[in-house]
Amino acid sequence: MQLYIGNQNYSTWSLRAWLIFSEFNLDVEIIKLRLFSDDFYTTLEPINPAAKVPTLVDQGTAVWDSLAILEYINEQYLDGLAWPKDINQRAKARSIAAEMHSGFNDLRNELPMNIRATRGVELSEGARKDIARIEQIWAEQSELHWGEWLFGEWSIADAMFAPVALRFQTYGIELSAAAKAYQQKVLASASMQRWIQEASLETEVVVEDEAGEPLE
Amino acid sequence: MQLYIGNQNYSTWSLRAWLIFSEFNLDVEIIKLRLFSDDFYTTLEPINPAAKVPTLVDQGTAVWDSLAILEYINEQYLDGLAWPKDINQRAKARSIAAEMHSGFNDLRNELPMNIRATRGVELSEGARKDIARIEQIWAEQSELHWGEWLFGEWSIADAMFAPVALRFQTYGIELSAAAKAYQQKVLASASMQRWIQEASLETEVVVEDEAGEPLE
Repeated sequence: MQLYIGNQNYSTWSLRAWLIFSEFNLDVEIIKLRLFSDDFYTTLEPINPAAKVPTLVDQGTAVWDSLAILEYINEQYLDGLAWPKDINQRAKARSIAAEMHSGFNDLRNELPMNIRATRGVELSEGARKDIARIEQIWAEQSELHWGEWLFGEWSIADAMFAPVALRFQTYGIELSAAAKAYQQKVLASASMQRWIQEASLETEVVVEDEAGEPLE
Repeated sequence: MQLYIGNQNYSTWSLRAWLIFSEFNLDVEIIKLRLFSDDFYTTLEPINPAAKVPTLVDQGTAVWDSLAILEYINEQYLDGLAWPKDINQRAKARSIAAEMHSGFNDLRNELPMNIRATRGVELSEGARKDIARIEQIWAEQSELHWGEWLFGEWSIADAMFAPVALRFQTYGIELSAAAKAYQQKVLASASMQRWIQEASLETEVVVEDEAGEPLE
């Protein structure tokens, strides 16, 4: 299998897909492409006409979009282990994962992932609402599974929210104790530490994904 | 089961979730809430803190976001029938469904679903790209399954693209023969005819979802 990803400093969707391979120690070749470069498009277009990362190629089949890759790997290689076993818990995990997948546009636009940076940013009302909703989700699950993943064991829901933990760190977003407990769990995990380390070695600046003012 | 939906004239996400119940004749009570009304929020907030439609309640469990509802119903009531049986076909169906679920923001903003209306609209470059990509997806699948659903049998991918068939009609978007064959299949289906009929009986105007100029 080959997983095409973008710059690790910036590419939230790449991180989401990559996490399932890391969490379950699945064998995969990572091919990193510089976001918005010519090479990015000429490499991806013949494989995935959407020309976006992440794109997975498994035995000649292309799978793209983070959530489709996560569902595919879960079915094909994990026998369903990457969602909670209980149907009601799985329904909730899928609900919050899909909510993150389709929404939170103000958060995405105003607080782009930028792992290496520490920034101050003016938030719109929409972005504040997005942050409050994420805080609510994290706090609710923390009360049930303090210091653990959202549903106790790691699940695809955790993959979907992982970049947000990094965004909140970059832009200095204050969280309640319960939400912070989850953020800290995410940031301290071995997979995330490895991704952060790899991102910190990158030097490319992608201006499209830079926002806010550097803090002194 | 209860499915909470918004105005049928405007609510694309409601339509996507509703379709699986209609296509598989599943017993469900439909509760329609007027988008952006006080009643909308006071009804939904205690059930689903995201306070969005569609929201499903099944035996006390709330499931929200169209894709999560579709996956839930597929697993819980359809034994997987709502995705293609073949793993490679399922991977592709999930890829394009997820691509629609997470993207096409310019299309969403500039061509909101408005079933009753016929409108002219100025398109941005982003919206043109969105339309071209959808046309490409539809044409590619039409060449394989002319006059049928995207993967032959109806699947969740068809639910995800259904509102776009209506948008293209409202705003007079010209399509290739292959893409148009799929659009016509969607619009002529019994489920869509029923939804369109119900939408046409609505009289509420939701200004947030009105765009473009009426055609003479």
